[in-house]
Order: sequence, then C-alpha cells, then structure tokens
Amino acid sequence: MQTPQPPHRRCSALLTDLYQLTMAYSYWKAGVQSKEAVFHLFFRTHPFKSGFSIACGLGDAIEYLRTLAFRDEELAYLGTLTGDDGKPLFEPAFLEYLRTMEWCCDVDGIPEGTVVFSHEPLLRIRGPLLQCQIVETALLNLLNFQTLIATKAARVCLAAQDDPVLEFGLRRAQGVDGALAASRAAYIGGCAATSNVEAGYLFGIPVRGTHAHSWVMSFDTEEEAFRAYAEAMPNNTIFLVDTYDTLTGVQRAIETGRWLRERGHELGGVRLDSGDLAWLSIETRRMLDEAGFPKAQIVASNDLDEQTISSLKQQGARISIWGVGTRLVTAYDQPALGGVYKLSAVRENGGPWRHKIKLSEQTAKISTPGLQQVRRFRANGFFLGDMIYDLDAPAETSRVIVDRVDLTRRKQIPENATAEDLLVPIFRRGRSVYEMPPITAIRDRAQAQLAGFHEGHKRFLNPHEYPVGLSPALHDLRTRLILAAREGRETGPRGETL
Amino acid sequence: MQTPQPPHRRCSALLTDLYQLTMAYSYWKAGVQSKEAVFHLFFRTHPFKSGFSIACGLGDAIEYLRTLAFRDEELAYLGTLTGDDGKPLFEPAFLEYLRTMEWCCDVDGIPEGTVVFSHEPLLRIRGPLLQCQIVETALLNLLNFQTLIATKAARVCLAAQDDPVLEFGLRRAQGVDGALAASRAAYIGGCAATSNVEAGYLFGIPVRGTHAHSWVMSFDTEEEAFRAYAEAMPNNTIFLVDTYDTLTGVQRAIETGRWLRERGHELGGVRLDSGDLAWLSIETRRMLDEAGFPKAQIVASNDLDEQTISSLKQQGARISIWGVGTRLVTAYDQPALGGVYKLSAVRENGGPWRHKIKLSEQTAKISTPGLQQVRRFRANGFFLGDMIYDLDAPAETSRVIVDRVDLTRRKQIPENATAEDLLVPIFRRGRSVYEMPPITAIRDRAQAQLAGFHEGHKRFLNPHEYPVGLSPALHDLRTRLILAAREGRETGPRGETL
Repeated sequence: MQTPQPPHRRCSALLTDLYQLTMAYSYWKAGVQSKEAVFHLFFRTHPFKSGFSIACGLGDAIEYLRTLAFRDEELAYLGTLTGDDGKPLFEPAFLEYLRTMEWCCDVDGIPEGTVVFSHEPLLRIRGPLLQCQIVETALLNLLNFQTLIATKAARVCLAAQDDPVLEFGLRRAQGVDGALAASRAAYIGGCAATSNVEAGYLFGIPVRGTHAHSWVMSFDTEEEAFRAYAEAMPNNTIFLVDTYDTLTGVQRAIETGRWLRERGHELGGVRLDSGDLAWLSIETRRMLDEAGFPKAQIVASNDLDEQTISSLKQQGARISIWGVGTRLVTAYDQPALGGVYKLSAVRENGGPWRHKIKLSEQTAKISTPGLQQVRRFRANGFFLGDMIYDLDAPAETSRVIVDRVDLTRRKQIPENATAEDLLVPIFRRGRSVYEMPPITAIRDRAQAQLAGFHEGHKRFLNPHEYPVGLSPALHDLRTRLILAAREGRETGPRGETL
Repeated sequence: MQTPQPPHRRCSALLTDLYQLTMAYSYWKAGVQSKEAVFHLFFRTHPFKSGFSIACGLGDAIEYLRTLAFRDEELAYLGTLTGDDGKPLFEPAFLEYLRTMEWCCDVDGIPEGTVVFSHEPLLRIRGPLLQCQIVETALLNLLNFQTLIATKAARVCLAAQDDPVLEFGLRRAQGVDGALAASRAAYIGGCAATSNVEAGYLFGIPVRGTHAHSWVMSFDTEEEAFRAYAEAMPNNTIFLVDTYDTLTGVQRAIETGRWLRERGHELGGVRLDSGDLAWLSIETRRMLDEAGFPKAQIVASNDLDEQTISSLKQQGARISIWGVGTRLVTAYDQPALGGVYKLSAVRENGGPWRHKIKLSEQTAKISTPGLQQVRRFRANGFFLGDMIYDLDAPAETSRVIVDRVDLTRRKQIPENATAEDLLVPIFRRGRSVYEMPPITAIRDRAQAQLAGFHEGHKRFLNPHEYPVGLSPALHDLRTRLILAAREGRETGPRGETL
C-alpha cells in the first residue's frame, strides 16, 4: 500500500527519548506492560496565532510504525547503558522482549490535509501500555513539525491569493529532513513547487529553478551571463537581475528575451531578490510590458512570509510568483508546535476503562479523558463546529458542543447539518489498514477543507474562533475526574463518586 | 578514516536546489564547467545577537562530499524534468556527464568546535566551477543548522555556569535529522547529555532519562507509581513530581528515597516541569536537605533557554541540572542562520585568478574577493583578533587588521602574539585528507576556545565586539573591485586599473 521510504527517511526504533525505554522497562518489571492503554496526540494552541492548522505527518508516522523493530546492534547499544551505580539499566531478558516484540496497537488518525483545531486528537493509539509509550516521541516529532509547516504554508498561500508560491528553503532548513519533510508539508499546505530536487524525486512534487548570482559572477559581464544561460536552457529562463543593479538587469533580461524570441522561445521572466520589491516590481512590470513581454513572470524572493506578502500586495506590487524559503521551512516566527501525547484511559483484561486526566495549575494544560473521536458538522457548504466525544459511552447523538472550560459556552448544531467523524482507522492489531492517498489528493483535501471555513477563521489578525468543544457527556466525565483528583477522592472508572 | 554514516543520515546528490543543476547544465553547455573557481561559505551576522558562534557541521559535510554521486535512478528522474515548452531540461549526454563525474575539489575548513565570527569563511571550496556549484545547497544546509545549534547550546551552557545541561528536544525538533543533528551540535556546544537514544547510539553522546507523567498516571496513585519505578530501576531515579501537586510529589519522592536507601540505593533526585521554578526549587532543596538527601539533584525543565536560566539563577533558584528542549534544538528565538556561499575568484587553465565580488546596496552584503584564510592572533592566553587574508598574494606578514568597511578602524597586533591559521585541509583533489576528531575532542575544543575569549565577548546583552577584519592587502583588493564594479570599469585580475 505505502511506497517503501528510501533508507535515509526511515525512523529507527531508537529515535525516542531514553525515558520511554526506562518506563518501558519499568512497566515490564512491574508486570503491567500489557495493560490496555489509550493515548491521544494533540496540540493546545495553534501556531502563529492562526485560527486553524493543517494536519500533516501521518504518512511518515505510518511508515515509522509499520517498520518499528529493534535491530540487534541497537539492542546491544541499550545493553551498554548504565545507571548511577555503574550497573546496566536494562536486564538482558528485557532486551530480548524488545527484540521479539510485535507492534499490535490500534491507531486512528485524522488524514493529512485536514483542517484541525487545538485539543483535537490527531492520533489515537490504543494497545499494550508499553507499546503505546515507546512510540510517543517519534510520533510527536513527525506530526509536530509537519503540521507546523503545512499550516505555515497554507497561511503564506492565503496571503498570495491566486499567485503560485515556490518553496526555496533547503539551504536554511533545520537539517536534511527539516528540509525534505518541510518541502512535502509545504506542498500539502498549498505551495506550487519546491527548489528541493530530492523532495521532487521522493514525493513527486514539481521542482523549479534557473540560476543564481554565482552564474552571473562567473562571467565577465551580466549580458554575457544571460546570453550564455539562454543559449543553454532556452525553455527555462527566469533571470536573476540584481547581481549588480536591478533595473539594469531587467533591461538586459529584456534584450535576452528579444534574442530568445527570434529563436522561437519566450522569456520566462525575471527574479527580484533584494531592494524595495514593491517599487521594483512595478517598474519591472512596466519595462517588460512596454518591451512587449506582458506574459513574462516577475518572481520575488528575500525573506518573505505571509505578513510581507500581504504588505506587498497592499502596496500594489506586481509580483506574479512568490519564492518563500527560510521563513516558511523553519516556521520562523514560531519554529515549534507544542503537540503533546497524553494517557487518557487504562484497563485490565478487557474490564471497564479507568479514565485518566493530568492536572495542572494552568487550565489549558488539564487533559481530556476518554477514547476520543472528533465529529465535524457541516451545513450549506460551511463547517459549523467540531465536537470531541467519548467512544466509551453510549453512541453519541448529541448536537450540543460544550466549551472545554466554560460550561455555559455552547453551540447548538441545527438539525439539517451533516456530520463526519474525522479520525479514521490507520492500524488494527498492528496491521496497516489505511491506504495513503497520493500527495496531490492530500493537497486537494487541504484546499477543499479550507474552502469550507468562513474567511474570519482564516484571517491573520485576531481570527474568529471556530467552535470546538466536548460533547455534554464527555464534559461531565472530565469535570467529575478533575474534581475528584483535586479533592484526592477515589472514584469509579468513569469518575463517579464511590 | 570516518565512520560510515548510517543510511538515514546520508545526503543524496539530489539534495540540492534545482538551480544548481540547471546552472551546472548551462556551464557544461557553455563549455566552462572546468573553469577553476573558489567559493567560500560564511555568515554575515551572529545568531541571537551573540558575540560569537561555534562552527559545526563539518563532519556531515565531509561525509556528503566523500560519497557524492548521482545514482542511476536519480539521473533517470532528472531526465523526466521538462521546461516551459514541455521538452526535457537536460540532455542525456549531460546526465551521463554527471554519472561519471568524480569529485575532485580542494576543500579547506575550520574544524568543528572552533569559535568563529561573521564574514569568516567556514569552508573554502576550490575546483571545477560545476562541482563547486552543485554542492552549495547541501553544504549550507548542514553548516547553517549545526553552527546555529552549537552556538545556542554554548550560550545555554554559559548561562547554566557549571551546572550540567541536558538536551531534551527530540519531540519538538524540526524533523528526524533536525533532532539528530541538533543533539550532536548541542553536545559539541557544551551540553552534558541528550534524551535522544539514537543520537547516543550514532554519536556516542551520553543519554539520560527516567519517567514521564504518563508513568504516574498509569498507576492509581503517585506513591504507587514512584515505588514501582524505584523497584524496577533503583539506579536511575529522578522522580517527576508535578503530575498532581509539586510539593506533595517531592514529599512522595523523599519517602521513596528512604525506601531506596534501606535497600542500598540513593535517590537520584526530582524533576520540576511546571510552576514557579525558582520558588519550587528553593522549597524542594529545603525539603530534600531536611530529609537527609543533600545530594539528590533538582532537575528543572519547561521552555528553558539562556535567558530564563540566567533569570532563575539571579532569583536564587536551587536547580542543579537544566533540561533544555524546544528552545535549544529549534534555536527558537532565531531558527535559521543566514550562511551564504559566494564565488570569489575564477581562472582558466592555471592563469591568473580573476577576483570577484557581488555588489549590493547593503554594505554588509558586498562579498569579499580572494582565496581566503583566517589568521587568529593570541597573547597571554587570550585571543586578540582575527585577520582574513588572501592566499593569492605574497605571503601575509601584516599584523594590522582593518575593518571590512571602515578603513580607519584598525587593530594592531603586538609582536609577542602567536598566530594560527584556522582553515585546515579537508579534501585534496577530491580525496579526504582530514581525520575527524572524536566528538569529545570537538566538545573540548569548543570549551578551550571559549576560555580564550574575554567575558565581554560572551555576554548576552550587547556583547563587546571581537576584532575581525581584513589584511591591508585584501582590504585594498576589495576596495578596488567595488569601485571598478560600481563604475562599470573593466579591470585587471586583481582589480587594478587597466
């Protein structure tokens, strides 16, 4: 079903925090490794003060889980780790347990390209406590970063309106995979192409590029450089015009464009990479139009993001293609998404679920219990609200969404609304049951999803909050558990007073 | 010489911007692919308003260059790319040229762990123009990110003074390699250990970890959870005490510590992960000391960086080990280093070098010509200044460092100072001639280097600027070239008036 990942994109079983393995060992020593557990992966606040996020990273997560295994040399390494008394951390019998362990969890997840909101589970993992635990860190790494970048890309593309956005970030990205995963996520978020050739090769993303300053500098003059490039690659000509003086460069690109036209080719356009992009693009457009090149593109680059693009648009810049690099692939203004992975229920031998919460002095950090699903309501072509509900309760039929914190904030969903549950089966008993869509379908999904949200949720400044909350039953469960934990009371499995 | 990298850390030859390959093709078509060129990789400003940076990434750069080759399936992919007329971008003969190309450049570089400054070349690449060009993007990716993180880590460790700093960033890092490369760079910058088990396995970095909130939540009570952990792993006990209430958690850790002591083990300590870390650590220290556990460590974590650590130190926090994650591995306050790779000289058939600059309206963006080396002067145990000089000039004997821009800002180096040239041979005619030091030696080098700089250069707020400039001869060459280019004059190879 999945295309095998090339080796340099594979996550090792050791790609985890050591504490996952010391906990795994301790679960095993305590004999609770097979207790059934449920964890959810979610984030608490949107990045960039955004009103929405775009789920991304499930593809890599599936590959990681599908190939999860400890190799002999990795186990040998674990065997060398010692505690504060110089003795081994792990008994050989535990390493043997890891060696023969077979991944057997159920995983449900929200497909890539879906618009998601804070506190909604992007993944639900259910299975033996030990197995759920050891996959936490890698899953967070993959989903946090890729969701961050897909969201950033969607914002940049919204700012660019109908203009294509090219992702140029490889040279400043955070490591090899910080670039590759970002190129894929940026395409899913709406970018038209990448400069990253390997991303093109691995993921089937369109690639773009022509020449740099060094091309121009390696010749004695700019005229000579443009002519030589046009001779070599007449069907891919975007001339970088600011090596010496931008508007002189534009004039030379026009001359080269005439030379190309005489030979049956058309000037692709020019790229502006410094200076006042608004003014320069207006002048450049005028020069190109007057010279008879109205179809020549003006590409702009230089530390662009959704804010600078919006500002340039407001100033009437005549830019037709946006090259966005560093600020997109590093999510420069907020380079990490704070996704977490929280235990929400445990049970033994198929008994009743014991629901769990983590307390905190910060209300937003108190977790949600239960086995969670997200139901999204829609009417008249627009999404109305999302309800997180508990699968360990009678089939949910409520159409009231209650705010997680403020019981009095409620959204009533009208009768004519349709409902869709967002988490779909990904693994059953450790086997992948999900067919990954092609990347173009994922990108289309993101566009279709975004079209279903009112503009107010998508604006950059103070976006209008989309209604997301709990079902009344889940809200009650959560409240009972918080009160009982705060008062130190023992409760029944669903937080009921004993 | 080098340890072979595991496959998932290998950079493919396609890990580049497409424009490097379209330029390579065009060099080849223009018949200038073998013109001899010199490029330097450098950055223009320190990250984080720092007064220094720590060079890092050379190890991966060497592996990338040593294994550089286009595989058949990669070339087949390049053969599928088309221009705006739907015809192939690359002729088959060019792809065959790439297939049989052998890396043959000379590379000189500044060893990892060296303190470096803006405008100093971290790498000098000399060889056929085409080969120098196609490695630009990957080299920038590797050195930009790793130098950024080693620098961030050095700052965090300076803030922590003599306390160990643990790097915990994997879950929020920018992709798989954004975590692995960051763990290595953080260790080089001064961190004591990482939570990232694979980084420990691959790079020989110490790893640390005990348990998370989910361990505590998976049991009915915190007492039960601590006891079960202590039974399982008595030689590695740092209890996370804030799942429910921090100081209650500390009391339970103390009780577990007594239980451990009865069995011949010592309580490792506790970890604080939320709340007012200054106040909580002071209370926790008092409780541990009064209970007879003066050696138990207090680990703190929760969005720490050099600023929060400095602030907590000033508030008298009794924290003995600092766990730093997101803000270190993503370099949160400046997630990209703006390193660039600039052509500085070309020549044909062993003739005279023709020196090159790139102009810009921004003075700082005008490049430096020549074949550059960096000479660092030292006297009485302290570094005095760095002079960038030109190897294509009579042997440099000057002891005057001239500011790149302001001719009147000069530093005279005293006679008793010793001098060291920082760039050392890495490749000669394409063969690796550098023996990578073990990672502990690289880390020691960083510490020794930092000890050679006055405190003023290392402070966080308005650091005192360390003198870095050009030799008088290189300054003259640069001035001649800028004036000639601005005036559009043809010059001799060294910018002399014709």
